[in-house]
Amino acid sequence: MSAPARLTVGKKMLPEREFIAGFHAIGEERYHHKHPFHLLMHEGKLTRGQLQAWALNRYYYQSHIPMKDSVILAHSEDPAFRLAWRKRVIDHDGDGKKPGGIEKWLRLVEATGLRREQALQGDGILPATRFAVEAYVNFVSTHPLLESVASSLTELFSKKLITLRVDRLREHYPWLAGGLDYFDARMTQAPEDAEFALAWVVENAHSREDQEKAYAALRAKCDILWAQLDALYFAYVEPGWPPPGAFRPEA
Amino acid sequence: MSAPARLTVGKKMLPEREFIAGFHAIGEERYHHKHPFHLLMHEGKLTRGQLQAWALNRYYYQSHIPMKDSVILAHSEDPAFRLAWRKRVIDHDGDGKKPGGIEKWLRLVEATGLRREQALQGDGILPATRFAVEAYVNFVSTHPLLESVASSLTELFSKKLITLRVDRLREHYPWLAGGLDYFDARMTQAPEDAEFALAWVVENAHSREDQEKAYAALRAKCDILWAQLDALYFAYVEPGWPPPGAFRPEA
Repeated sequence: MSAPARLTVGKKMLPEREFIAGFHAIGEERYHHKHPFHLLMHEGKLTRGQLQAWALNRYYYQSHIPMKDSVILAHSEDPAFRLAWRKRVIDHDGDGKKPGGIEKWLRLVEATGLRREQALQGDGILPATRFAVEAYVNFVSTHPLLESVASSLTELFSKKLITLRVDRLREHYPWLAGGLDYFDARMTQAPEDAEFALAWVVENAHSREDQEKAYAALRAKCDILWAQLDALYFAYVEPGWPPPGAFRPEA
Repeated sequence: MSAPARLTVGKKMLPEREFIAGFHAIGEERYHHKHPFHLLMHEGKLTRGQLQAWALNRYYYQSHIPMKDSVILAHSEDPAFRLAWRKRVIDHDGDGKKPGGIEKWLRLVEATGLRREQALQGDGILPATRFAVEAYVNFVSTHPLLESVASSLTELFSKKLITLRVDRLREHYPWLAGGLDYFDARMTQAPEDAEFALAWVVENAHSREDQEKAYAALRAKCDILWAQLDALYFAYVEPGWPPPGAFRPEA
C-alpha cells in the first residue's frame, strides 16, 4: 500500500473549501516566492551575470513546459479537457503569428545580453536544472492525470509573484525593460489556467487518498521549482561555484 | 544531425590509447574527488549532522544502482555480457547470505546515528538527490548500450577516492569505523567492473562519433555525481539552507 493510502485509510474526504485551502497552505510553505534567490532579485541585488544565469537556466524550464503539457494532453481521453488544456501549448508555442511564451523568454535572455542561440542550445546550463526539468516531464509521464493536473497548481500563486517581479525588475534593472513581455502575458494566462485546473482537480478527486495525492503532486512541483533556484544560488551567489562546464559570467 | 555527429564528421577514430586517455582527462576535470564537500570530509571538517545528510542522501543513489544496472541488463542481447554485468547487481543486492552493498550502506547510515528506516523510506532526502538519481536511471533507459556502459566509467577513478576516504574517515571520525564495510568491498569490485566496462567500450566504439558519445556519457555521469554534492553543500554547509521538508540535523 502506498504511503498516502496508508495515511488516509478510514479518513473522510475533505470538504471542497478545506481541500482548496490545503493547496494554498502548501504554496505558502513551499512555493519559490520565498526563495532567497528571488528575494535578492526583488531587492535589486543581483548582478547582470546572475540575471543572465537565471534567464539562461530558466529558459530550459520554459522550453519544456509545452512538452510537459503535451504529455498531459496525450493522457486525457476527454476532448473537452484537451481543448481547454491545449491553450497552454498555444500560450507557450505561439500561433505562428504572434510570439508565444518561449519566444518571449528568448527576448528576455537577449535583454540580459546573452545570445538566444546559447539558450536554444542549452549551452552552459546547470546539470541540476536539466535534472529538475526532466523530473517534471517524468512526473506527468508516470502519474495519473489527477496528479499531473494538480502539479500545475503552482500557478495559483504565480500572479502575485510575477506582479511583484515585473515591478521590481523595472525598478532595479531598467536595462531589462525591453525583455519583460513574457510576464505581462502570464499575468492573465496563469490565473485562467489555475482556475480551470483547480476546478478539475476538485471535481476529479473522489477519495481522501486522491486528495492527498493531489497535495503530494503540488509539493513535488514546488520541490522542482525550488531546486532550480537552490542550484542557481549555489553556483552564482554563495558559495558561487558553477560546476565544471557551466556558464560563467564575465568578470 | 546530433551535436557529436556534426563535430566528428570527417574526423578519424582515436587510437585505443588516446581514446582511453580521454576518459582519464574527463575524470581529472569532472569526477567528484575534487568536490569541496569531499575535501571537507577528508580534512575532518564535517559535523556528524553533515555526515548524516551525506549518508542518507547517498543511500538513495546506492539503492538505485542495481535498478540502473538491471536496465542495462535488459538492453543487452548478449548472454556473456549479461553474465559479466550481473555481478554488479549481486554486489549491491547480495546473494541472500552475505550482505550486499545496499545493506552495507544502511549500516553506514546507522553508524552516523540515523535509523535505517529513514534511509529506506527516503525520508528527508533532498529533491535534488532524487532528480539526479532519476536522471541516471533515465539516461541508461534512453541511451544505447555503448553510452550506458560508458557512463559507468566513473569507476575508473573510484578506487583512489575510496582508499583516501576510508583512511580519512577512520582518522577523523573514529565513531564511524563500524560502518565502513561498504568501501572495503568496493575497493576490489569497482576496479574489476571498470576494467570490463572500459574494454567493452573500446571494443564496441566503431566510429569517432561513437567515441565522442562515450565521452559525453562519462561527462553526463560526472555531472550526476557532482550535482548531488552541490546540493548537499548548499543545504548543509554553505549557505546551509535545507529546502522545505528536507532532513535537518539536530543542533
